[in-house]
Amino acid sequence: MTHEIDALVAGVQSGDRRMLARAITLVESGRASDLESSIEILNRLHPTAPTASSIRIGITGVPGVGKSTFLDTFGEHLIEQGLSVAVLAIDPTSTLSGGSILADKTRMERLSHNPRAFIRPTPGGLHAGGVARQTRETIALCEAAGFEAILVETIGIGQSEVSVSDMVDTVVLLLLAGAGDELQGIKRGIMELADVMVVHKADGDNEQPAQSAAAELANVINLLPRRFTDWQPSIGTCSSLTGDGIAEVYTRVREHRAAIGDEEILSCRSKQNLQGFEDTLRDIVVADFLRDPKVADRLEAIRAQVLDGLLHPTAAAAQLLAE
Amino acid sequence: MTHEIDALVAGVQSGDRRMLARAITLVESGRASDLESSIEILNRLHPTAPTASSIRIGITGVPGVGKSTFLDTFGEHLIEQGLSVAVLAIDPTSTLSGGSILADKTRMERLSHNPRAFIRPTPGGLHAGGVARQTRETIALCEAAGFEAILVETIGIGQSEVSVSDMVDTVVLLLLAGAGDELQGIKRGIMELADVMVVHKADGDNEQPAQSAAAELANVINLLPRRFTDWQPSIGTCSSLTGDGIAEVYTRVREHRAAIGDEEILSCRSKQNLQGFEDTLRDIVVADFLRDPKVADRLEAIRAQVLDGLLHPTAAAAQLLAE
Repeated sequence: MTHEIDALVAGVQSGDRRMLARAITLVESGRASDLESSIEILNRLHPTAPTASSIRIGITGVPGVGKSTFLDTFGEHLIEQGLSVAVLAIDPTSTLSGGSILADKTRMERLSHNPRAFIRPTPGGLHAGGVARQTRETIALCEAAGFEAILVETIGIGQSEVSVSDMVDTVVLLLLAGAGDELQGIKRGIMELADVMVVHKADGDNEQPAQSAAAELANVINLLPRRFTDWQPSIGTCSSLTGDGIAEVYTRVREHRAAIGDEEILSCRSKQNLQGFEDTLRDIVVADFLRDPKVADRLEAIRAQVLDGLLHPTAAAAQLLAE
Repeated sequence: MTHEIDALVAGVQSGDRRMLARAITLVESGRASDLESSIEILNRLHPTAPTASSIRIGITGVPGVGKSTFLDTFGEHLIEQGLSVAVLAIDPTSTLSGGSILADKTRMERLSHNPRAFIRPTPGGLHAGGVARQTRETIALCEAAGFEAILVETIGIGQSEVSVSDMVDTVVLLLLAGAGDELQGIKRGIMELADVMVVHKADGDNEQPAQSAAAELANVINLLPRRFTDWQPSIGTCSSLTGDGIAEVYTRVREHRAAIGDEEILSCRSKQNLQGFEDTLRDIVVADFLRDPKVADRLEAIRAQVLDGLLHPTAAAAQLLAE
C-alpha cells in the first residue's frame, strides 16, 4: 500500500490525470480500510504554507439556468487565458451527475475534449456534509495536480448554497429573466452569498428581458447584506451561446479577488478548512461509534423495534447511546 | 420540569396550538438540557400502534414555482373538505423561513388567518440531517395535536428531495411551463420521487403553455422509474390564482393513497422512522463525543492548528478521534 501511496502522490504532483482520478476515487471511497491511505495522501499533498495561487469559483443557480453550458463556455475562456481548469459538479441534479430528461443536450461538449480541462462529478448517495467534505478534498487534490482554476458547480439552494460559499473564493450566481423581465426563482438567501451575478441566456429574443432584469437587480442590490465588506456584488448579463459577456464574467471575478485581497482570501480559506475539519469529525466519530462491537450487537434489535413502531426514533437513538 | 412536560403533553393532546407551538420549540431546541424532556414528550405522544389516519403530503418544486400560493389555496381546499391542516416549511428559501425579495407578495395570507390551519417554518441554521429529524418530530407533534393533513413544503432539490420522500406519504411536484411550452428546471432525480405532478400557474396567457407542457410530460412519464409499483405518477395543471384544478390535485392525492393502500403507507412510515432513528443517532453521537472533557480540552488546540494551515482538516479530525 505504501508503494501505491507513493505512486499516487508522485502522480498527482506531476499532474498525471489518471493518477489524479485514482487519488480522488480513493479519497471518495467511504471504506474504512481506505481512510488511512486517504489521510496520508492528503497530508503529503497538503501545502506546508497556505497559498492563494489557485482561483476557486463556485457556479450556482437553479436548475434550468444553464450551468453546464455556462461552464463549457466559461471554462474554454479561462483556458484561452492560459489557465488549466478543473470542473467539479456537486449539484446532484447536474447533467454530469444525474442528467436532465428534457433539456441540456449540450452539456460540456467542448470542455470535456480539452486537454487542459479536468471534469469530475461527485458521486451520488452522500449526505450534504459528506459532499462538502469530499469536494474540499477533491479541490485540494486538483490544486496539488497543478490546476489553476477550480470551478465548483452547485445547485446553490438551501443546504448546499451554504456549502459552496464555504469552499470557494468567489461565488458566481446565474439568473434567468422571466417571460417578461422579472427575475425567476431568486431568493434573498442565495443572493446574499453571491459575489458576481449574471443574468444568463442573454441572446436572441431574450436579450432585452435579460438586460431589464439586470437593471432591476442593480436597483435592489444595495438592500442586500454583503458577503465581503470591500465588495459590492456586481451584476451583468451573458450568453453561453454567443459568448457575449463571458470574458466580462472572468474580469469581474478578478476584480472581486483584487478588491478583497490575498489576505482575506487566505483567511476565508482558513475558516473553510476549519469547517472541513468539523464536517469530517462528525463523519468519522459516527463511523467509529457504529464500528463498536457492542453497538453493532444492539443496533439490529433496536432497528427492528423502530421498524415495528415499538420505539420512537428519537428515543431509540438516545437509548442506544445510553447503553 | 415534570409538571411542564405533563402540561405540554396534555396541551398537545387537547389540540391547544399554543402548547403545540411550545412543544415544537422545545423539541427543536438544540440544547442538551432539553433533549431529555424532548424524548419524554415524543415518547408519551408516540402512538402505541402505527396508524395511517393522517395524510402527509410533500409539496415540492424549484424556487419561483409558487409553492406558497399553492399551499395557501390547496390548504384552504383541504379545510373546506373538513380537514384540519398543518403546514411545515423546510424549504430554506421559503417565503416563510427566508423570504424572496422580488416576488411572492401573496405568501399564505388566507391560510395564516384560518383557525383550522397551523403554519410552522423550520428554524434556519440546521444541517440537512437536523432539518429532516426536526421535521419528523414536528409532524409527530402536529398529528398528536389532531391535525389530519400535514403539508410539508420543501425545495425538492438535491439532498432535501431525498428527505421529503422520506417524510411523507405522497409527493406533489409543482412545475412551470416555460415561455414556450417546454418545462423549466425539471430533472430526472426530482421527477422520480414525485407521485402527483402539477403544472402550476395555468392561468391567463400561461394556460395554453401549461396544458402543452402537461401533455409533453405525459409522453415521457412512462420512461421514469416509479416510486411505488402500484402507482403511475399522474399529471395535470392547476392555478392557485383562479383555483382551477386545485380540487383535482386533492382527488389525485387520494387516488394515490387508495392505489398504494394503507399497508404500503404504514410500511413506508416504518422505513421513514428507521431513517429518523439513524439521523438522530448521528446527531447525538457527535454531541456526546464533543461533550467529553478530554475532547473539549484538545479541540481548541487542534482547531487553531487547522486555522493556521498546519494540519490538513481530514488529518486533524482523524488525530482528534485517535487521541
